[in-house]
Amino acid sequence: MTNYNFSAGPGVLPTPVLTKIKDEFTKNEFTHMSIIEISHRSSQFEEIIASAEERLRDLMNISDDYGVAFIQGGGSTQFEMLPLNFANRKNKIAVLDSGNFAAKAATAATAIGKTAIILDSSKDDKYHHLPMLSPDFHADDYDYLHLTTNNTIEGATYHQDNLPKTTGRMTADMSSNILAEPYDVNQFDAIFAGAQKNLGPAGVTVAIVKKDWLAEQNIQHVGSMLRYQSYLDKHSMYNTPPVFSIYALDLVLEWVQEQGGVDSMYAQNIKKSSKLYDYIDNSSFYQALVDNSARSLTNVVFTTNNLERDQVIAKEAAKAGLFNLNGHRSVGGFRASLYNAQPQEAVDALITFLKKAEKEYK
Amino acid sequence: MTNYNFSAGPGVLPTPVLTKIKDEFTKNEFTHMSIIEISHRSSQFEEIIASAEERLRDLMNISDDYGVAFIQGGGSTQFEMLPLNFANRKNKIAVLDSGNFAAKAATAATAIGKTAIILDSSKDDKYHHLPMLSPDFHADDYDYLHLTTNNTIEGATYHQDNLPKTTGRMTADMSSNILAEPYDVNQFDAIFAGAQKNLGPAGVTVAIVKKDWLAEQNIQHVGSMLRYQSYLDKHSMYNTPPVFSIYALDLVLEWVQEQGGVDSMYAQNIKKSSKLYDYIDNSSFYQALVDNSARSLTNVVFTTNNLERDQVIAKEAAKAGLFNLNGHRSVGGFRASLYNAQPQEAVDALITFLKKAEKEYK
Repeated sequence: MTNYNFSAGPGVLPTPVLTKIKDEFTKNEFTHMSIIEISHRSSQFEEIIASAEERLRDLMNISDDYGVAFIQGGGSTQFEMLPLNFANRKNKIAVLDSGNFAAKAATAATAIGKTAIILDSSKDDKYHHLPMLSPDFHADDYDYLHLTTNNTIEGATYHQDNLPKTTGRMTADMSSNILAEPYDVNQFDAIFAGAQKNLGPAGVTVAIVKKDWLAEQNIQHVGSMLRYQSYLDKHSMYNTPPVFSIYALDLVLEWVQEQGGVDSMYAQNIKKSSKLYDYIDNSSFYQALVDNSARSLTNVVFTTNNLERDQVIAKEAAKAGLFNLNGHRSVGGFRASLYNAQPQEAVDALITFLKKAEKEYK
Repeated sequence: MTNYNFSAGPGVLPTPVLTKIKDEFTKNEFTHMSIIEISHRSSQFEEIIASAEERLRDLMNISDDYGVAFIQGGGSTQFEMLPLNFANRKNKIAVLDSGNFAAKAATAATAIGKTAIILDSSKDDKYHHLPMLSPDFHADDYDYLHLTTNNTIEGATYHQDNLPKTTGRMTADMSSNILAEPYDVNQFDAIFAGAQKNLGPAGVTVAIVKKDWLAEQNIQHVGSMLRYQSYLDKHSMYNTPPVFSIYALDLVLEWVQEQGGVDSMYAQNIKKSSKLYDYIDNSSFYQALVDNSARSLTNVVFTTNNLERDQVIAKEAAKAGLFNLNGHRSVGGFRASLYNAQPQEAVDALITFLKKAEKEYK
């Protein structure tokens, strides 16, 4: 039995990367040390962190107008760092409430003393469609607009072709679909992504910030660890970085490059997710709830419209080697996460299982 | 040739732990996943993080009066979190400037808008002795006193028997000697330690905070990620924790328990460091600069009183398999870090090498 991991993150990582980490883990032939024993000031690690940045710049076409930082603390720390660093003129940010993590970003901005205005929300629709910018949005009233490109829990996505257009600054939480589909980085003034979905193990977060915007800021009473500038000034080594997570991140980025980059990942992700959505749409037993144009490629959310039955079926799936198909505890149902490292075979196996379950439980 | 790693951190870890991580790394037989692919919400990880806390409580005799948190961001983030959480009445902290990291804690407190008063400093003496509390110290004027138990760079240590005595609150940065020698936790109101010296890989920091002190605080405009309470309320899973680092931490703590706990580590560390200090003291070529009573067990700092020659010798040492003996870039000379995982044989090999170098370079 082959096993597949549909976890929303931390989740599946590329098998060649796992094998390489294991092979290299003890006593590297050059350093005679494990990767978790080397100093972050060693030339070996300096090469790794420089390589990770270079690969990310290559994969996302990040220009020199942007700095790249590797930060600890996950997306939740970014929810605080973004307004601390960038909401200093109006002290006010605009949020499109497209899901749980967008709402959390608004709450975090408020907690640190800024104002967060929810422009539009799809909460009443259980986040099954995307909130949009109204034509009378005045960007000048806010320091920036905060966006979650992919809503990991609820499964709606602002793809490149349905992104809001604004004349103001825009920031994006790309935690669960970075490198899964193409985005033009130049549309954003800051982007971040926790690694543990599409980039590597938990413990490191990537931030991409526009340098001239950062230079404009007058930041008061914020320590170095929450200032992007500290990371940019010191190549993310203001203090000891999470060495292992960055090492693994670099290997995952190398793997993405070897696969042909984001365009190739995108083609694979379209194929995987379409196959699954098509099957669900053609079934009278399962239902995908998110608006067609907004459907996530990475987190496919669906249900039999009976949450207890969903749980029973997800449990059966695990017995069959299809793990972590439960929806997020806040919404129930099913969620199949199809990150870059998820093979086509996983989707095939899932569809085969879902057909069987349909027969059994319908 | 056996190789030894004298790095000040990230540094040497126990070989059995490295072997176990490697052996278990791909496809655990229960979960069919690597440790870096499992969800932090999985029962497997919930057991790991609970185990790590339990082992730390056991090893340090931490009572229920204290909460234990696993936090990202290293000691530098703790330099900001401590005053943000605990300097809310006087908005003022007292610092004994015993080394670079104590000075950094003072700078960080100032950066977030608090006042940091250096009560005493040994900077003019290159931190070769310990600054002390004067008898007229008024603890009531400050929210707390900040202490660095072991000064990783300069090599002076407040051991249990030369700790300052205060009637007020006291916090300790134990990053480089936690579990290396015994301390009575009850003397402190908060303790923290970055893992990457004595506890495991970089990427996680342990914080031990007194619950009743935390409950007294009125914290304004600080986000959840910088509040200890968020970590205590959610068992360090307010958001995705650094899964791999906590897993490795748990294995290191298990290893320390198997070795007989802190008392046994302490006996080993006394033996290792005494052997080295004795050799240095009896040599007319090398010199240990720190006051005898304040000498670190974990970071042995010494020199031939010729910084260029020290560098040449450290380079020769690396060729002989004795790595990372250079002193910190800010002070030069030699630094031999003798953390718990450093075997006695490493010290023996180092002394043999130093004798040889003495003959050659004297």
